[in-house]
Amino acid sequence: MDKLKIAAEKKSPICIGLDTELSYLPKSLLQKDIALSEKLFLFNKEIIDATEDLAACFKVQIAFYEALGMEGLLAYKNTLAYLKRQGLLSIGDIKRGDIQSTQAKYVEGHLRGDFEADMVTLSAYMGEDALSPFYEDLKRGDKGVFVLLHTSNPSAGDLQNLQAGEKKVYEHMGDLLEKWGAPFIGEEGFSAIGAVAGLTYPKEFALLSKRYPKMFFLIPGYGAQGGKGEDLQQVFRDGIHGVVNSSRGIITAHLHKPEGEHFAIHCREKALAMKEDLCRW
Amino acid sequence: MDKLKIAAEKKSPICIGLDTELSYLPKSLLQKDIALSEKLFLFNKEIIDATEDLAACFKVQIAFYEALGMEGLLAYKNTLAYLKRQGLLSIGDIKRGDIQSTQAKYVEGHLRGDFEADMVTLSAYMGEDALSPFYEDLKRGDKGVFVLLHTSNPSAGDLQNLQAGEKKVYEHMGDLLEKWGAPFIGEEGFSAIGAVAGLTYPKEFALLSKRYPKMFFLIPGYGAQGGKGEDLQQVFRDGIHGVVNSSRGIITAHLHKPEGEHFAIHCREKALAMKEDLCRW
Repeated sequence: MDKLKIAAEKKSPICIGLDTELSYLPKSLLQKDIALSEKLFLFNKEIIDATEDLAACFKVQIAFYEALGMEGLLAYKNTLAYLKRQGLLSIGDIKRGDIQSTQAKYVEGHLRGDFEADMVTLSAYMGEDALSPFYEDLKRGDKGVFVLLHTSNPSAGDLQNLQAGEKKVYEHMGDLLEKWGAPFIGEEGFSAIGAVAGLTYPKEFALLSKRYPKMFFLIPGYGAQGGKGEDLQQVFRDGIHGVVNSSRGIITAHLHKPEGEHFAIHCREKALAMKEDLCRW
Repeated sequence: MDKLKIAAEKKSPICIGLDTELSYLPKSLLQKDIALSEKLFLFNKEIIDATEDLAACFKVQIAFYEALGMEGLLAYKNTLAYLKRQGLLSIGDIKRGDIQSTQAKYVEGHLRGDFEADMVTLSAYMGEDALSPFYEDLKRGDKGVFVLLHTSNPSAGDLQNLQAGEKKVYEHMGDLLEKWGAPFIGEEGFSAIGAVAGLTYPKEFALLSKRYPKMFFLIPGYGAQGGKGEDLQQVFRDGIHGVVNSSRGIITAHLHKPEGEHFAIHCREKALAMKEDLCRW
């Protein structure tokens, strides 16, 4: 998490979400006589190259690639490998959550193997077993995880907002994450166990970020999902303790614009506008 | 779910879990001069061929394949395709849970695309949004989902057992699943929205299966995880309303036996023993 915090301070607290769909690809790229995986990868690469000085990290949402089957997953793999080669930070947005022996396999695949990322997202409905297989890699200091805490979607509250004693379910989850994350505090003061907390519920987010000062947040919900920069300005006034993800808002910026060779210029412009929106404090 | 209920009655309520690791493969297969994906697939195929008359369905745990990267996922894909060709029922054990637009991508990948299965497992920490993109496919009647309810692992209770009002969190989840599943009741009386409930907590399981008579269960925790057939005999006395998964117990039955051409005979024997253990009621 140290690296991410430093990158967020140096560049901006923006996480660019590469939720790449075929319909986002410029026609000129779609019509090239190359494999589908190569088209998807080149699309991502152009956006990465055009924005890498503006974004703290890139999040690759694996669902979009699984939807495209083996070719999609090859693009997922190649995108993460490219980020690594460029020295850029990556989040594999996989939201895996299972029993220990199964989670250990996800560690093999997503922190070490073909799909290696610097950080991954996890779901802990099954409790600490979903996290403990990651501890060995977290201890070494260069990997991190973000666990679902209070998500940005409309039905987030179905389970997360249930009142359980004096706390809501998501607050229980937060307290557990704080406890589990305590052994992994880095030099910048943040645990390698971070949390996903949506910007669409700004009040709850502000409370969470106060309640857990050592927790680094992955914050979805900006732009397409309705969250605004001003919601974060209060929260980030005391320093950066999270990255704000934008996917569609940035990677579809070129659609409905006249098509040129350099579609990613439009994505860069959107990322710049987002940086301005976020960094007004 | 109709098809699964019928298969469970005709064959047995066994679900064979193909959690395939390289270390499970017989040496003769490992040393063959073929691609890794082919070795993994042939291992699965032998087990499927040797047990298909005994098992209601086969569950393929994708984590084991993701751990082996692109080659692993090719084996995952080919295993599901083979099950389909043979007219056998498959569960893609993916436990995905995300916002609607992302879950819609998992539908594309896992109910329709390269990784098509008859049923998949899901996690609903994010609420109904994790399920609603599947409704269209569930309505058509030949697909099903199993959502994490009360899992079989040691730390299942961290979140699931929190007391929230008069009910525990997992009971709230069960009530939600019952509500969401109500429009999808099939001819056999079960909803296409089933639930994962572990055998390692037999009392809780018995209560759940009474509380939700229209819910079909995927029941992990038999064998390696400690669950016993006798725990199920009470529950299944009134009819079959779930399938019991065994993975390692069956697919490693040939290890530490003298190696022959037909390693899967040992897997068949274990499946037969499990059938006897389960079907004594």
